[in-house]
Amino acid sequence: MKTIRVNVEKEYSVNVGRGLLDEIGPLVREASGASKAAVISDATVFALYGDRVIASLADAGFTVCSFAFPAGEQSKNFQTLESVLNFLAKSGLQRGDVIIALGGGVVGDLAGFAASVYMRGIDYVQVPTTLLAMVDSSVGGKTAVDLEKGKNLAGAFWQPISVICDLDALETLPSEVFAEGLGEVIKTDAIAGLGFSEVLAGGNIETRLEEIITACIEYKSKIVSEDELDKKGIRNVLNAGHTIGHCIEKASGYSIPHGKAVANGLLIEAAMAVKLRLCKESLLETLQAEVTACGLLMSAENESSASDGDFVAASLVVDPDRWIEIMTHDKKNAGDEISFILPMDFGNYVERKLSRVEVRELLGRFGK
Amino acid sequence: MKTIRVNVEKEYSVNVGRGLLDEIGPLVREASGASKAAVISDATVFALYGDRVIASLADAGFTVCSFAFPAGEQSKNFQTLESVLNFLAKSGLQRGDVIIALGGGVVGDLAGFAASVYMRGIDYVQVPTTLLAMVDSSVGGKTAVDLEKGKNLAGAFWQPISVICDLDALETLPSEVFAEGLGEVIKTDAIAGLGFSEVLAGGNIETRLEEIITACIEYKSKIVSEDELDKKGIRNVLNAGHTIGHCIEKASGYSIPHGKAVANGLLIEAAMAVKLRLCKESLLETLQAEVTACGLLMSAENESSASDGDFVAASLVVDPDRWIEIMTHDKKNAGDEISFILPMDFGNYVERKLSRVEVRELLGRFGK
Repeated sequence: MKTIRVNVEKEYSVNVGRGLLDEIGPLVREASGASKAAVISDATVFALYGDRVIASLADAGFTVCSFAFPAGEQSKNFQTLESVLNFLAKSGLQRGDVIIALGGGVVGDLAGFAASVYMRGIDYVQVPTTLLAMVDSSVGGKTAVDLEKGKNLAGAFWQPISVICDLDALETLPSEVFAEGLGEVIKTDAIAGLGFSEVLAGGNIETRLEEIITACIEYKSKIVSEDELDKKGIRNVLNAGHTIGHCIEKASGYSIPHGKAVANGLLIEAAMAVKLRLCKESLLETLQAEVTACGLLMSAENESSASDGDFVAASLVVDPDRWIEIMTHDKKNAGDEISFILPMDFGNYVERKLSRVEVRELLGRFGK
Repeated sequence: MKTIRVNVEKEYSVNVGRGLLDEIGPLVREASGASKAAVISDATVFALYGDRVIASLADAGFTVCSFAFPAGEQSKNFQTLESVLNFLAKSGLQRGDVIIALGGGVVGDLAGFAASVYMRGIDYVQVPTTLLAMVDSSVGGKTAVDLEKGKNLAGAFWQPISVICDLDALETLPSEVFAEGLGEVIKTDAIAGLGFSEVLAGGNIETRLEEIITACIEYKSKIVSEDELDKKGIRNVLNAGHTIGHCIEKASGYSIPHGKAVANGLLIEAAMAVKLRLCKESLLETLQAEVTACGLLMSAENESSASDGDFVAASLVVDPDRWIEIMTHDKKNAGDEISFILPMDFGNYVERKLSRVEVRELLGRFGK
C-alpha cells in the first residue's frame, strides 16, 4: 500500500493498494473517532462491495448504516442530496460521526456535498471505485450536485479525512468506464510530465497501474495543497482539456462521458496550441496516439488522417458557435475572456485567456 | 449610522441606522465589485421594500434580478433552496456576483446557504428586516435549511460580506414579531451584562433601540470573531436559553416562535441555576420581569406566583421526558451529557454539562 499525504488545512492521507476494501474499518478508524459510519453508495457499486465494506467497518467497532441511490449522473441532484441528508438525520448521525462515500465520481461528489452541509459539516472518507474517481475527483475536496442549467453548479469545498483506493475495484469496471479514467490520466501525464506517454500510447497500462495512479494522485495532491480553495489560479492547470472537453460533453447532452470528452478536448486544445505556435505538432501526435490507444478517440475514421495537423479537430463534430455559447456560461469564465490551459510540451503548459473572437477564429479553422 | 467590524477571516461591516434601505446600492458597492445583484426575499418583505432596494442597487450600477418565496419557516427547506439556486443559474449569476438577503431569519439563513453553495460559494449581503435577525441571525455566518427531522440540520458556515440593518424596517413589524427579537436581546443582555435590564423590564425600549441593537451586535461580533466556525466552544455562550428554548419550540410543534421560546428557556435555565445554587433568585426575578414586560412570558397567570423560586417553571408546561428526548437529538449534544449555559449574574455565566439523570431530576422539581 502506498500512502500520499495531502497538505491542506486539515491534512489527510490517500491510500492506494489492493485488498483495501476489506481493510476499510481499520483505515477509517485511524482517521476517525466516530461511533457511527454511514455508507453512501449507488446501487451498482453497493451490490458489488457493500457487504464487505459494512463488515469491515462493523469489525472496527463502527455502528454502520447504509444508503444506496440509483447509479448514474441523473442521480446527482438536489432530490438525492435531500434523501441522503434525511437518511443521515433519521439514522441519528451526530457531528462526530463519519460518512463513507463508496463509488465513482457521482457518489463521491454527492456524498461529499452531503457531508459538507449535514449539521454544517461532518467528516467523510472517499472510497473511489472507478479510475476517474481515483485519479481525479476523490482528491481535492470539490463536492457538488448538478442544477437544471449545468453540472456541478451547487457544491462546496470540503476535504475528506481519508481517501482509500482499492485497485481491485477496477477489475469489475466495464472497459469503457475504465477507459474514461484514462482520459484524466493522459491529461495529468501531459501537464505534469509524469513520463507515462509511452505506456499510454502502447496500451500496456495494466502492469503499471498502481504506479500510474499513485503518480497522478501525487501530482493532484501537490496542486491541491497549494490552492485548497481554488482561489490562487494554481488549480487551473487541472482544467487542461476541460474547456473544450466541457463543450463536447455538454453539446452531446452528456452522452459522451467526462473522461472521453476531456481526452478529446485535450487534443483540440493541443491543436489550438499548434495553431498559436505554442506547441510542437509532435506533442499533438503523441497525445493522439495515447487517446487512440486508450480507446477514447471520438470517431474511428479520424485515424487515417493522422498526419494532418488538423486531424483531430477536423474530424470531430466541432461546433464553434455552440461551443462559444457553452464556454460563456461556464462558471470558470467571466466577461469576454475564455481561459485555456494550453500544452507546450510534456510537463510544460501555458495559461491563456483568449477572447471569444479569437477562440471562434481558431475553432473555425477546424472546419467541418 | 453606526458601523461594527466583524473580525473573521474575511472581515466585514455591520451598519446600523435609519434610512439605509435606500442606501443599499452604495453600501453594497463598497463591499462588492459585482455586476449582478440577486435580491432574495420573502413575498411579505419583498412587497414592502423590494422596489426601493432594487432601485438603490440599480442606481449604484448593479444589474438586478429578484426572487421572492412564500414567507414563513415552512419555506426554509430544500425545495426552496433548489428554486433559488435554479433562479440564480438562469439569471446568469457568476462567481463575482452578489446575493442580497432581504428579510428575517428564514430569508437570511436560506439565501446565505444558497450563496455558500452556488458555484461553491459567492458573496452575499444580509439585510435583516426583523429585530431577531438584526441582533442574532444576520451576524455570524451560520446558514441553514430545515430537514424532516429538525431545524437547521443542513447548512454551512458562510460569512456575509456586509450586514445592513435599517431600523426603519422594524416599524412595519407586527408587535409579536418585534417582541420575539427582544427574547434574544434579553438573553444577550443577561450573558453580556450590557446594562439594559432596567430598560427591558420597564418596557421602554423604543427610545434606546439603536443603542440596544448596536450593543447586541457588538457583543455577538466579538464572540463570532473569536470562534468563527464554532469549533472552540466560545460561541456556546450564545446558546444561553436555547437548550430549554429548543425543547419548548419543538414540543410546541414550532407554534411558539424562536425568540419567545428562548426567553422562557432562559427563565427555566435560570431557575435550574438557582436550584444548583449557581444563581441568585434576584437575577431570576429580574429576568422574569424583563420577559413579562416584553410580552414574552408563556402564560399570564404565572405573574401572580412571582415570589416563589419555582414560579416560572412551575407554571409552564414542563414536560421533562419529552424534553430530555429532544435534547438528546439536538445536534449540539453528544452522548449522555447535555450542555447548558447557566446564568450566574448579569455578564456572568457558567457552562455546565449535566447528565440526563441530573437534568431530569432538576426539571422534575418544577412539577406541574
